[in-house]
Amino acid sequence: MSDVKVTYFNGRGLGEVIRYLLKYGNIGFEDIRIDQDDWPTLKESTPFGQLPLYEENGKVTAQSVAIARYIAKKVNLAGDDEWQNLEIDTIVDTITDVRLKLYPLYYESDTEKKESLKQTLLAETVPYYFERFEKYITKNNGYLVANKLTWADVYLAVSLDLFFVFLGENVLEKYETLSSLKKKVEELPGIQEWIASRPETSF
Amino acid sequence: MSDVKVTYFNGRGLGEVIRYLLKYGNIGFEDIRIDQDDWPTLKESTPFGQLPLYEENGKVTAQSVAIARYIAKKVNLAGDDEWQNLEIDTIVDTITDVRLKLYPLYYESDTEKKESLKQTLLAETVPYYFERFEKYITKNNGYLVANKLTWADVYLAVSLDLFFVFLGENVLEKYETLSSLKKKVEELPGIQEWIASRPETSF
Repeated sequence: MSDVKVTYFNGRGLGEVIRYLLKYGNIGFEDIRIDQDDWPTLKESTPFGQLPLYEENGKVTAQSVAIARYIAKKVNLAGDDEWQNLEIDTIVDTITDVRLKLYPLYYESDTEKKESLKQTLLAETVPYYFERFEKYITKNNGYLVANKLTWADVYLAVSLDLFFVFLGENVLEKYETLSSLKKKVEELPGIQEWIASRPETSF
Repeated sequence: MSDVKVTYFNGRGLGEVIRYLLKYGNIGFEDIRIDQDDWPTLKESTPFGQLPLYEENGKVTAQSVAIARYIAKKVNLAGDDEWQNLEIDTIVDTITDVRLKLYPLYYESDTEKKESLKQTLLAETVPYYFERFEKYITKNNGYLVANKLTWADVYLAVSLDLFFVFLGENVLEKYETLSSLKKKVEELPGIQEWIASRPETSF
């Protein structure tokens, strides 16, 4: 019986980077998916009212990126030295910055405002960051940092999925370097099988 | 001559956690403060258009929290093992979540909406998080994590300053445990001298 548990909603969202890393490292875990109806009750018992949660040997903690960094070290997807870890963290926090720019789209109920936000993202935000990410990938031998696969690449791959959901699958059309890194991550042993077998959810 | 450079605006903001950690560790650095007028020109040359930047031996990177984690390891304010580092990161990312909730206040120009946002922060957000942080501090012998001083405490102390700026200095009135941790950080060797001698800025 596995002593690792990942608790999240029935979706990819903030949970998927954790699941990818565990699958990549062949670490067994219980994939607990909370029904929205049960969430208000569970919320009270979480450290800061948020999912995902990560449990190991009975100890529980929260925050997706923090958990991903922890697992990355276990599965050898961290840097070789502390400067590389810093460079990974710089990219990871920048990916989070861009993810956060998508959320107003989700919460905006006015159709016209939503469309205007979407156009700004497509015309300004996406090119600004995607072009910079591509330069890193070109400079680092096909990976974001350190000339090798790290958890920054895995985080980018799952985050690009979020861009598909909010901005359409063709958002990556012009970014071949980003697309091929995403594909490379999705074909990794463990992750490929997971994608083929995971529960189907809209995001 | 120091080979460490910290580049930020002339303010505390996202730069101060880096300066505190360097001062605590007695690591010399060049404290470069960019004039707002010079920023548009410099912005182009930064990795992702943002400050602070951290430079060491000619290598440059961005993202305040990533940089803080890197320096914390150098100055022995990281965890003793990877689980402690995860717990630190969980708290740090949660502090960032709360900081981000303050920014709409800064950008809201409508006086009435600004006041309403402020009231929600004071009545709901602040108590929710501050009470939880206090529980951690009580459980961990006066510190947020690991029963000892870590960079999570330093990040909390500088972040509470931001709450003062946006919500008023009396925001900590009811939170003696938080207040005394903030004071403890501000009286640390290196940090105390820095606070007494740093440039005076509004935030």
